[in-house]
Amino acid sequence: MTVYETALGASTPDTITLLGQDLARDVMGNVGFGELAFWLATQRRPSPGETRVFEAVLAALADHGFTPTAIVTRLTYLSAPDSVQGALAAGLLGGGSRFLGVTEDASRFLSSVVRSAELPADDDGWDALALETLRARGKARIPGLGHHVHKNGDPRTPRLFQIAEEEGLLGPHLSLFAAIGRVHPRVLGKTLPLNGAGTCGAALADLGLPLELLRGFALLARTAGLIGQLAEELRNPVANDIFLSVDTNTRSIAPAEE
Amino acid sequence: MTVYETALGASTPDTITLLGQDLARDVMGNVGFGELAFWLATQRRPSPGETRVFEAVLAALADHGFTPTAIVTRLTYLSAPDSVQGALAAGLLGGGSRFLGVTEDASRFLSSVVRSAELPADDDGWDALALETLRARGKARIPGLGHHVHKNGDPRTPRLFQIAEEEGLLGPHLSLFAAIGRVHPRVLGKTLPLNGAGTCGAALADLGLPLELLRGFALLARTAGLIGQLAEELRNPVANDIFLSVDTNTRSIAPAEE
Amino acid sequence: MTVYETALGASTPDTITLLGQDLARDVMGNVGFGELAFWLATQRRPSPGETRVFEAVLAALADHGFTPTAIVTRLTYLSAPDSVQGALAAGLLGGGSRFLGVTEDASRFLSSVVRSAELPADDDGWDALALETLRARGKARIPGLGHHVHKNGDPRTPRLFQIAEEEGLLGPHLSLFAAIGRVHPRVLGKTLPLNGAGTCGAALADLGLPLELLRGFALLARTAGLIGQLAEELRNPVANDIFLSVDTNTRSIAPAEE
Amino acid sequence: MTVYETALGASTPDTITLLGQDLARDVMGNVGFGELAFWLATQRRPSPGETRVFEAVLAALADHGFTPTAIVTRLTYLSAPDSVQGALAAGLLGGGSRFLGVTEDASRFLSSVVRSAELPADDDGWDALALETLRARGKARIPGLGHHVHKNGDPRTPRLFQIAEEEGLLGPHLSLFAAIGRVHPRVLGKTLPLNGAGTCGAALADLGLPLELLRGFALLARTAGLIGQLAEELRNPVANDIFLSVDTNTRSIAPAEE
Repeated sequence: MTVYETALGASTPDTITLLGQDLARDVMGNVGFGELAFWLATQRRPSPGETRVFEAVLAALADHGFTPTAIVTRLTYLSAPDSVQGALAAGLLGGGSRFLGVTEDASRFLSSVVRSAELPADDDGWDALALETLRARGKARIPGLGHHVHKNGDPRTPRLFQIAEEEGLLGPHLSLFAAIGRVHPRVLGKTLPLNGAGTCGAALADLGLPLELLRGFALLARTAGLIGQLAEELRNPVANDIFLSVDTNTRSIAPAEE
Repeated sequence: MTVYETALGASTPDTITLLGQDLARDVMGNVGFGELAFWLATQRRPSPGETRVFEAVLAALADHGFTPTAIVTRLTYLSAPDSVQGALAAGLLGGGSRFLGVTEDASRFLSSVVRSAELPADDDGWDALALETLRARGKARIPGLGHHVHKNGDPRTPRLFQIAEEEGLLGPHLSLFAAIGRVHPRVLGKTLPLNGAGTCGAALADLGLPLELLRGFALLARTAGLIGQLAEELRNPVANDIFLSVDTNTRSIAPAEE
Repeated sequence: MTVYETALGASTPDTITLLGQDLARDVMGNVGFGELAFWLATQRRPSPGETRVFEAVLAALADHGFTPTAIVTRLTYLSAPDSVQGALAAGLLGGGSRFLGVTEDASRFLSSVVRSAELPADDDGWDALALETLRARGKARIPGLGHHVHKNGDPRTPRLFQIAEEEGLLGPHLSLFAAIGRVHPRVLGKTLPLNGAGTCGAALADLGLPLELLRGFALLARTAGLIGQLAEELRNPVANDIFLSVDTNTRSIAPAEE
Repeated sequence: MTVYETALGASTPDTITLLGQDLARDVMGNVGFGELAFWLATQRRPSPGETRVFEAVLAALADHGFTPTAIVTRLTYLSAPDSVQGALAAGLLGGGSRFLGVTEDASRFLSSVVRSAELPADDDGWDALALETLRARGKARIPGLGHHVHKNGDPRTPRLFQIAEEEGLLGPHLSLFAAIGRVHPRVLGKTLPLNGAGTCGAALADLGLPLELLRGFALLARTAGLIGQLAEELRNPVANDIFLSVDTNTRSIAPAEE
C-alpha cells in the first residue's frame, strides 16, 4: 500500500498541525501571512529579516493596475459572477513566460553564474565577474536590464537593494545584479536601468527560494492584487465598458483563406 | 472616450503608486503581505489588530494536507510541469461551494441576522437572539455547526475567538456565532462544535470584508498552501503514485446504455 | 481495495477500447466528432438525426465574435504564449451563470414543466399548458424570451426548430417553448422573440442530455471557437491593442476609504 | 480609434454570420462539428477527407480513462459542483508539455525536416531521408517512437495511416514518420513502435493545421472526453473514493529543514 507523506497540514480528532507546529496555538495569531507562505514553500521558518525582504518583493509584484491579468479577471467575473475562483484562476493563467519572464529569467541567469563561479569578496571582484559574464554573453539580451516606462530608473530597484542591505540579506544574486548595473555600459555602449522585476528575481534567489517556483511567488502576490481588482470592480464596475469598447469597434472581415 | 478609474496600481516614468501610496518608499519594506491584501480588498489600511485577526484566518485556511485541491495541483503539475500557473489555477478551481461553502454560508447566515436585528448589549441578549434565530430556522442546517473529524471541538475555533478578543475585534458576527454555540443544544437536542471554517467566516465578516469576496480570501490562503504542496512535490514526489493507485485499480465496464 | 469502474477509455498492451468499442477499428474513421461527444456524454450512440441536431446546437454556440471569453483567451495568450491550455481554460472560465445562463435556465424551466404535466397531443394543448405556466409564473422573467440585439427574431431559432422537425426530434421541450412563443403576448402584453440560446437549451433537453452538464456542451462548442480566436490572433493580433486601449485611458483615483 | 477585425462570429439585428457564412442557413444543420472546428482554426472549409482524418485524430485523443486530467476534473467537480466550467478548465490545464508533448514534439520534429529537405518521390527516398535525419540526431530521443504499454504496436497508428491513405492525405509528415518506423532499427539497434500520439501529430501537420495550436486540437478532443468523465461521475461517482484512498494513506512527517 502506497503511503503519501507530507509535512504540511495534518489533523487528528483533537489536533491540527501545520509544518510540525500546533496550528491553533503556535501558528494562528503568531505567524504573519508572508512568513507563513515562505515557511510553507521552504519548510523552514524565515527570520524577520527574510520575511521583510520577501514581503517587499510581494508588494512590488501585487498589482500594476489594468494589466492583461487584471482585465481578464474582471471580464471573467462579468461573465461568470457565480465563480470567484474562476475569475481569480483566469487572471493567474496570464502569469506565464511573457508577464513573469523577467523575474524568472533574471534569477536563472544570475543563478547560473553564481553557482559556477568562485564568489568575489568585494565590489571590484563582482564588477570583474559581471564584465566577464556580459562579454561571454555576446549580443544576447540581459534579463532584468531595461524598462519600457521607467527609462531613468525603476523606483523599486534601489528600495529593494536598501531593504536587503538593512536586513543583511544582500547575497550573491543581488550583488552580481548590482555589478551588472554598474558595468553594462562598458559592454553595451549605453546605460539601462535595472528593472524591478529582475531585482525581485535576484532577491528571491538570495532568499534561497526554489527557482522552479519563483513564478509561484509572483502569482501569490498577484492573487492579492486580483482580489483587489474584483473588490474595486464590485464598487466601481468597468468590465462591461471594456467589453463594449471592443465590441463597438469590431469590423467583420472576409476569412483569410477565401 | 471611456476612462477607466482605479485606486490600485499606477505608474509614471518616475513613480509607482499603489492605493495612493508611494509603492517603493511607503509600501515595500513597511507593509506586511497580509496587511497589504486586506488594504487592497478594502482600500482601507487595517489596524495591527485587524491584520492579526486576518492573518490568523489565513493561517487557518492555508493548507489541510492532501485535500482534493492539493491533489489536483500536484497531478496538474505532473502533466504540465511547464506551467506553474496552470497547476495553481487548477487547484484553486476546487474552491467552490462544497469546499468553501461553510465559510461563506456561515458569514451570510450570521450577516443576515446581524443586519436585521437590534444588536444585544450582553451575552444574555445574544443568547436570546440566537435562540429566536434557530427556532425560526426550523430544521434547516445551521452553517458552521458540526465537524466530521473534530467532533469534540475544532481547535481553531477557541483560538480565533481568543485572538479577536485580544484585539478588541469580537464583533456582532462572532458574538452571535458564540451564542449559537451556547444555545443550540436547547433547540437541536444535541451538542455540536462550532467549526473553524464557520468561525473564520464570522471573523472575516466582523472585519468588514466584502461578503461577495470571502471566498477570495480563502483562495488567497490556499494559494500559499498550494505553493507549499508544489515545493513538497518537487522534493518528494507523490503525484505519480496517486495516479498509479487509480490506474492500476481501474476496471473497464460496459457502457451504461447498452 | 477500491476499484474504479469506467466505460470510457481503456487499454491493454494490444487493444484500446472506448465506450466498449475497438477505438482504432470502430471509432476512428467511422464516428464523427460531434457524434462521439454525444456518445461520451450519454454512453449511447446517437442516431444521425440526433447528431445533426446536436451539431447544429454546437454550431450556434461556437463563436460570437469579441465576447468577454474571446477577449480573455486572447489577452491570456498575450501574457502567457507558452501555455495554449491556459489561454483556452481562461476563456472557458467565463462560461458561467451570466454567459450561459439563458441556455441552462430555459432548459431547466421547460424541464420542470414537462416533467410534472401530462403532455398535450397537439398545438392547442401545448398553448393551453404554456398559458397556464406563464400565468402561474406571474411577473418572473421567462428564460429564453427576448434578445437585446435580435429584437425582431433570432435567426437561429426558426432554423433549429426546422432541423429538429426534419429529424423527427421536435420533443416536448421545444414544443412547449414554441407554444410560449405563441401565447406569451396574451400574458405579457408585448411580443418578444424566442432567443437562440433558449432554443438551444430546449433542443439539448429534447435530446435527453443531462441537464447538469448542458453548460458543458456550450463549453465544448466554445472550445472550438476559442481555438479559432487564437488562430486568428496568431495571424492578425489584436490583444495588445485591446490592452493598450484600456491602459492609455486609465485614470488613477484616490482610494475609496480615504 | 482602433478597429478590431475578425472573420469569425458577427451579428446585426437581422443576421448572424460565422466565417463569412450565414450561420443559421449555411452552417447550422449543414456543417459537422469537427468540420466546423477545422474551419474555425484555418478559416478554410476542409474537404470531407480532411474532416475524416481530423475527426479520426480527435477520436484517438478524446479519452484514455483515468488519466491525471480525468482525475483532476472529477476531483474539482467534487469540490466545486457549482462550476462545470471550473472542472473542465482544471482538467485541460494538465494539457501541457508532458501529457501532450509527444504529439507536439513529433510534429515539430517532422516539420523541421520536411521544411528544409527536398521531398523524396518514393519510399526509398523517404527511407534515405529518414536515415540521414536519425543519424544526424545522434542519441537524442526521437519523438513519437516507443510506447510504455503498446510495446508491440499502438493500434491507432496503422489505422490512422490507413485513413489518411484512403483519403489521399498521406502527406510528407506521415511519409517521413513511416520511414522512420522502417529504418530506425538500423540506427538504434532495436525496434520500437510508432506511437499513436506521434502519428496524430504527423497527421495534423499534414492537414496544414498551425503547429502553434496543435495542442489546442488535443485539448478540444479532451474537452469531449472530460464531459464524458463528468457524466460518468454523475452516474457512478468515484472522486470521493479517490480522495479517500489518498487521505487514509497519508502520513505526517517532520518538515524537511528541521
